[in-house]
Amino acid sequence: MNHQREIFSSSQPLILESGTALESFDLIYDTYGCLNEAQDNVILIFHAFSGSHHAAGKLESDQDRGWWDSFIGPNKVFDTNKNYIICINNIGSCFGSTGPSSLNELTNTPYGENFPEISVKDWNQAIFYLLCSLKINTISVAVGSSLGGMQVMDLISKKDVDVKKGIIIGATHKPRQLNILLNHVQRSILKLDDSSDALKVARMLSHVSYISNDFLQDRFQYNTQDLETKISDDIVYESENYLSYHGEKFVKRFNKDSFILMTKAMDSFYFDESKIDNISSKVLLISFDDDLLFPAKDMVEFHKLLKLKGINSKHKNLKGTRGHDSFLYLTKEYKDELEKFINS
Amino acid sequence: MNHQREIFSSSQPLILESGTALESFDLIYDTYGCLNEAQDNVILIFHAFSGSHHAAGKLESDQDRGWWDSFIGPNKVFDTNKNYIICINNIGSCFGSTGPSSLNELTNTPYGENFPEISVKDWNQAIFYLLCSLKINTISVAVGSSLGGMQVMDLISKKDVDVKKGIIIGATHKPRQLNILLNHVQRSILKLDDSSDALKVARMLSHVSYISNDFLQDRFQYNTQDLETKISDDIVYESENYLSYHGEKFVKRFNKDSFILMTKAMDSFYFDESKIDNISSKVLLISFDDDLLFPAKDMVEFHKLLKLKGINSKHKNLKGTRGHDSFLYLTKEYKDELEKFINS
Repeated sequence: MNHQREIFSSSQPLILESGTALESFDLIYDTYGCLNEAQDNVILIFHAFSGSHHAAGKLESDQDRGWWDSFIGPNKVFDTNKNYIICINNIGSCFGSTGPSSLNELTNTPYGENFPEISVKDWNQAIFYLLCSLKINTISVAVGSSLGGMQVMDLISKKDVDVKKGIIIGATHKPRQLNILLNHVQRSILKLDDSSDALKVARMLSHVSYISNDFLQDRFQYNTQDLETKISDDIVYESENYLSYHGEKFVKRFNKDSFILMTKAMDSFYFDESKIDNISSKVLLISFDDDLLFPAKDMVEFHKLLKLKGINSKHKNLKGTRGHDSFLYLTKEYKDELEKFINS
Repeated sequence: MNHQREIFSSSQPLILESGTALESFDLIYDTYGCLNEAQDNVILIFHAFSGSHHAAGKLESDQDRGWWDSFIGPNKVFDTNKNYIICINNIGSCFGSTGPSSLNELTNTPYGENFPEISVKDWNQAIFYLLCSLKINTISVAVGSSLGGMQVMDLISKKDVDVKKGIIIGATHKPRQLNILLNHVQRSILKLDDSSDALKVARMLSHVSYISNDFLQDRFQYNTQDLETKISDDIVYESENYLSYHGEKFVKRFNKDSFILMTKAMDSFYFDESKIDNISSKVLLISFDDDLLFPAKDMVEFHKLLKLKGINSKHKNLKGTRGHDSFLYLTKEYKDELEKFINS
């Protein structure tokens, strides 16, 4: 598979929804497969909250394979034999696109907590600049889960790019109070302590909210943790060790300021219903029955809105295997739905 | 209603499950109504995690009415015209029974974080001492929700006291990994910071887990908080203000060390199935369909265990109004179930 990593540097300023501007910005992105001559075989993949442009494969500088590796590649769901797949790290994140750890040219110091407020619309605006520079104005499939799903909702309702098909997985078109409150608690945790310990604990909380009650129960039973392998003294159960381990792992790859601004972007997303008439894409909505954060009923509601306006759309509520994180794990049913839609 | 507050001081040591002993201990308890001559009209009420002996009414020293005030009183579900109702604050808590803020006689300083590990069985053992001192050996109804429900499970499977009827609400007979992990995150929050801010944030998290997704969504819609009334600068939504307000309120009445030891007691409770044969009580199990922490399926499982041994028991899954906290709010359906059982 042809796998490239590129950086797009825009010298055109990005006017943000909040009114402030980024005078210039970088976007890091991965591409998989090859762009055809007609430039119409593009699949655009949007990552979730803590994801990155590195969706599949493994370049020399990568430690692990990408987060959707089982979905992307030759003859896989997103088939690199036929498609040119692009996955872009959002601004405000911390994997190479302009974000809190980037240098603010006005002050010559990193932005840190002063990085401007970002919204889902801002992310898509930045991505639009990149697509223009690549002379891509047709997207065969735009697909995203969680925060990425919100980006797909926004993208298909704009007239910027011609999106043939949109796939929205485990997301919602309107604010969800439970998510807002869990994000509020996580940001409150970050205010308690400046060390990386706070980021670890905040992630432990988000991790719990991503996985399902049943998954936890099945996997961990009532097992207590071995004394020799436990991460800290206060751990009794295997599940606690698992959670603390994931918290520690997260701290090594994520940034506190990105955490704060991206959870705020999520909180503030509210799909603009007046833009539904702009949608020309065929739409597939996928929810998981054990997703605590983005329940199927929101998808049902969004689907009704689309149907009311005559949008060609389908909603499928799948049996989840991991709660919200189910979007990361390919089951047969999940694969079939995606392939049926992509090949339709 | 005859409402008294008493303190029972035991000079008999309490040998804890962990092996250590409390050489002496106090239990603070409220009583409502009057004990009859036969001493057989006792209703024993067990409080939840952060509850207290103050279940109803308002003595001069009380700021608010008790936590189950709509359930307890003349002609109410737990009828003080007929019954003598006792509610006892558990040891390890912070409302007057011996706990972390009590003086450790061996060191002449408060126990603090060195208060010994406590279990559900230990709580019941302490309560048994009190019942003996009151010469009460028959309990007409033992009722508890959440942690209190675990105490009822334990109590009815002991031969210490003759419990005629047991009511277990919103509880589980076995460890639930989601609860263990949320407790683990809450204790991890407490380790980040020694100030009361950490306790506030930990409580904000537990509060989110007590209320249901639907309740939050219905109550707060997408309302943003007024600038003048918001508790802190980082608050945008009304729901965030509500949560922060409840966190601050909690800090004024609760204790960090009690928080830690009581969540650990909850984590470690595992009903001993081999004791089912001891149960002579009639049992009512109530779950709420929107309870995230103690799902109905555990009650179904526990009910099956009881039925298998021929215990006279009933399980009712009620429509919840507030998630786990539904046990605090009396609906018509809830009231009917309780009264039917009590009067049966």
